[in-house]
Amino acid sequence: MTTPETSRGQHPLDMATFLEPLEGGRYRGHTSAAYANMVGPFGGIIAATLMNAIRIHPERLGEPLALTVNFAGPVSDGEFIVSTKVLRTNRTTQHWTVELTQGDQVGASATAVFATRRDTWSATEACFPAAAPATGLERATPIERVKWTAAYDMRFVRGQFSPAEDDNDQRDSVTTLWIRDEPPRPLDFISLTAICDAFFPRIFIRRPRWVPASTVSLTIYFHADADRLKLLDQRAVLGTARALHFGNGYFDQAAEIWSDDQALLASTHQVVYFKE
Amino acid sequence: MTTPETSRGQHPLDMATFLEPLEGGRYRGHTSAAYANMVGPFGGIIAATLMNAIRIHPERLGEPLALTVNFAGPVSDGEFIVSTKVLRTNRTTQHWTVELTQGDQVGASATAVFATRRDTWSATEACFPAAAPATGLERATPIERVKWTAAYDMRFVRGQFSPAEDDNDQRDSVTTLWIRDEPPRPLDFISLTAICDAFFPRIFIRRPRWVPASTVSLTIYFHADADRLKLLDQRAVLGTARALHFGNGYFDQAAEIWSDDQALLASTHQVVYFKE
Repeated sequence: MTTPETSRGQHPLDMATFLEPLEGGRYRGHTSAAYANMVGPFGGIIAATLMNAIRIHPERLGEPLALTVNFAGPVSDGEFIVSTKVLRTNRTTQHWTVELTQGDQVGASATAVFATRRDTWSATEACFPAAAPATGLERATPIERVKWTAAYDMRFVRGQFSPAEDDNDQRDSVTTLWIRDEPPRPLDFISLTAICDAFFPRIFIRRPRWVPASTVSLTIYFHADADRLKLLDQRAVLGTARALHFGNGYFDQAAEIWSDDQALLASTHQVVYFKE
Repeated sequence: MTTPETSRGQHPLDMATFLEPLEGGRYRGHTSAAYANMVGPFGGIIAATLMNAIRIHPERLGEPLALTVNFAGPVSDGEFIVSTKVLRTNRTTQHWTVELTQGDQVGASATAVFATRRDTWSATEACFPAAAPATGLERATPIERVKWTAAYDMRFVRGQFSPAEDDNDQRDSVTTLWIRDEPPRPLDFISLTAICDAFFPRIFIRRPRWVPASTVSLTIYFHADADRLKLLDQRAVLGTARALHFGNGYFDQAAEIWSDDQALLASTHQVVYFKE
């Protein structure tokens, strides 16, 4: 059943998102120590794995346009099953649902829209953030208790989480950083999906201390196509994130991912549980 | 099977989102002429109907936190079936999938997270938009070919769609407007869900002319709880929307819905197909 597309790559990201095809649109995956979070796996690697299940599916049409992942419950270290279902295939769009299960428990569910794209009028209204080039900034030290941070080269322009240095409330929760896979890997929809969840919970930035926080639902809209991503190769992308509202145990945050030549690659939103 | 909660209200919104309970978490609904779009129903009324299916479900826990609706294909005028499924119930959150079908075709699918909320630290980083009070503005004339616009009282602060007056490209796609149900109806999660999709496709504002455009995927994060909405009663809410990026046949737009006393009620995002 293994096709060239599903064969295991050498990069830790490809190993972490590797899926063994089973019958009926189902796949077997395994959590990866390189992408561990404080509890369970990094949400971005789950999102990337669900995206990968569609990517390698023989019925897939086109490229990712929209992905929503709902993190339903804790995912334990070990094996999991990813089940995919095509809800509807139109001429240029295709609608999917995906579920990650362990035993009879749903750990995550997702919906995705894939599409074939065509050339149209184009404009960007979002603003490319002010940022010094990545080369002039130092790589942030990975955080020991958040293993997956070592899988990225992150260079912060502003809004780095630093609970030891300053635990006063900040005026806002904005973070801008250059980020790429570490070791370097050519950018594609799998790595871009994971990067969309690589922003720390905004409560950590606004009130710089450790509190329980976890993403409940994540949505990504993809603006770049595969050719555009391929051109970027291993270059770092620029991410910028901010919160909209915190209250009653949840907050939402919005982010954009830009290429270094100022193309908007993806916009992403999430709602996050927090305890304070 | 009809419970007080599912009994048909007198308001057109309640009639349009009315669902007759069937077996096994399924419901029967019917499209409504009052919420017709140029082709098929207004997306907001579909989203509100899917939300209503969860609201009236006997196993529902808590209140809406996140909703994503994927518009998979055209919905024809007439009957449809809404199927609900609880994926997972945790102590304070509950994960749902919902599908709208006509015959064997999926017209729309949704995922939702409901939650019980508790008092926590609170802050708003999104900015309440500059806006004259609704009372000083004139109600916009409903657009004949977009029937659902007559179901709202809309008073535009800026960014009204006016293709006849000016078909030059605009500098941005921002709209800010006061909006409430017409006739007036107390605000709740059903009406708020529909209002989140009441912003015209941003391409209509940026390039003021009619082009084919339709929402592919819509996500809403709810910040207000039921008590907060109840206090607002029939007052208009303030909505503000903008595009992030247009290109290759799709664009995304982001919006916030505020109370007149400056509480962020919901943030919402969508990706939209357009032909240009």
